[in-house]
Amino acid sequence: MELWPKRHTDIWFTENQSPDMKLSLRVDKILLNKTTDFQDIFVAETREYGRIMALDGAIQVTDKDEFCYHEMMAHIPICAHPDPRRILIVGGGDGGVLRECLKHQFIKEAVLVDIDKEVVQASIDFFPAISKGMKDPRAKVLNMDALGFIREHTNEFDIVIVDSTDPVDFAAGLFQSPFYTDVYNSLKPEGLMIAQTESPFAEAKLLRQAYSEMKKVFPLVSLCWGAMPTYPTGFWTYTIGSKEFDPAQTRHPAPEDCKYYSSKLHLNSFVLPPFLENLLEL
Amino acid sequence: MELWPKRHTDIWFTENQSPDMKLSLRVDKILLNKTTDFQDIFVAETREYGRIMALDGAIQVTDKDEFCYHEMMAHIPICAHPDPRRILIVGGGDGGVLRECLKHQFIKEAVLVDIDKEVVQASIDFFPAISKGMKDPRAKVLNMDALGFIREHTNEFDIVIVDSTDPVDFAAGLFQSPFYTDVYNSLKPEGLMIAQTESPFAEAKLLRQAYSEMKKVFPLVSLCWGAMPTYPTGFWTYTIGSKEFDPAQTRHPAPEDCKYYSSKLHLNSFVLPPFLENLLEL
Repeated sequence: MELWPKRHTDIWFTENQSPDMKLSLRVDKILLNKTTDFQDIFVAETREYGRIMALDGAIQVTDKDEFCYHEMMAHIPICAHPDPRRILIVGGGDGGVLRECLKHQFIKEAVLVDIDKEVVQASIDFFPAISKGMKDPRAKVLNMDALGFIREHTNEFDIVIVDSTDPVDFAAGLFQSPFYTDVYNSLKPEGLMIAQTESPFAEAKLLRQAYSEMKKVFPLVSLCWGAMPTYPTGFWTYTIGSKEFDPAQTRHPAPEDCKYYSSKLHLNSFVLPPFLENLLEL
Repeated sequence: MELWPKRHTDIWFTENQSPDMKLSLRVDKILLNKTTDFQDIFVAETREYGRIMALDGAIQVTDKDEFCYHEMMAHIPICAHPDPRRILIVGGGDGGVLRECLKHQFIKEAVLVDIDKEVVQASIDFFPAISKGMKDPRAKVLNMDALGFIREHTNEFDIVIVDSTDPVDFAAGLFQSPFYTDVYNSLKPEGLMIAQTESPFAEAKLLRQAYSEMKKVFPLVSLCWGAMPTYPTGFWTYTIGSKEFDPAQTRHPAPEDCKYYSSKLHLNSFVLPPFLENLLEL
């Protein structure tokens, strides 16, 4: 006869996705939990999504769904650009976007500038499949403030990928037109940029702001969207600023091993549900 | 000087989306919390998604995102069918799918069969904007076991929409071929069915099962997908079984006031990310 139900150790990681919404994942093992000069880093094994990394409590990558986000961030701008060779990645210290960029043999150099070297190290230590692109001779990983870096580089890059955290603290400037102007100046005449711009369900105001700020700077601005389960609401947007070329067209094939991205998905991701067109007043 | 931080009442609704994943929403007010003959019904005001209804702890509808799911479930089959007039909705007691169906003037009758009359009543009481289709003279709402109902109706419907809860308890049979055979028999020769078939991230096995079970019965089976923030992972699938017509084509325009669905989205939703094609061995 059971007098008391069998109990067991129950560990949960909880992300406060907003003040009013939380996502919790069961944790089997905590691998890293520390505060760097810039942020909290948390790495754990979870039952639902495999290994995860959170920065300041917000999930950045998980083994199970990282491909959705990283493939979109890399292949949308690369496949839209007529002849991309040099790429700058702002943030993205986990290396997932870098790995995807380097799948294209015509990419000659990819410079990753992440302010926090401990994020880069955590990814090397705990996410070998995500960080592996850092070993590629075409990769250059710098740990410094990307806003400073970009102001010192003019007319150098074909593509700039802004793989930032949410716009708080040191990342706040990444959603504003002075930064977009610096990005514009760092790009060559055919260049284009892409930035993650949050969810229209959870952060409609922020998305509208990024979109309208980018329009002050780039002649062509478009939005595309995709699924990303562990980001708030699972519906993610990407905003592209382009000097000359329509980013909704593909000019190169998808790498063969993609799991989310394909040339058809590329075109389709620029077709927005009506509520999102209305939100942007398109 | 503050000796103790100001505190306040904190109420959260938590859905156990899986044994290892939970979504929590801040609750301002609980409007209904009861157990019927069939399930628990919970209705509350939440800060993030407005009013929500959960059955057995699983969110079914929220004010803010219900349109994503209801528009797909209704307009995909209706716009794909050459001449739809009579529709059967299995489950869907909230009335959201019914409302969308009746936006098309050429629909002459929509029969909704939900086993639980208290779900229907809760929707009438608390979700007037979702349940309003029930007042339409073309709507017929029945509270009985849909599995029994469908076996007694042969060659009667143009479209059957299976708006079920997760396949547990009384809904378990809704993901198996004997049920799909009954649906097939209830359909006219040009008929087609659509069923919600969960998320490939959270319930890959169940999705594969529904897909392969439907293929045993229907000559044409296709999958489409869409965003649905409050369902687990936010990435939702819909499986369509058709007797004759390719459901990936549209034969009628979208209703004017759609927020998620459009004719372009219809076509695009059948283009699957490679990981999902692989999962289904397409």
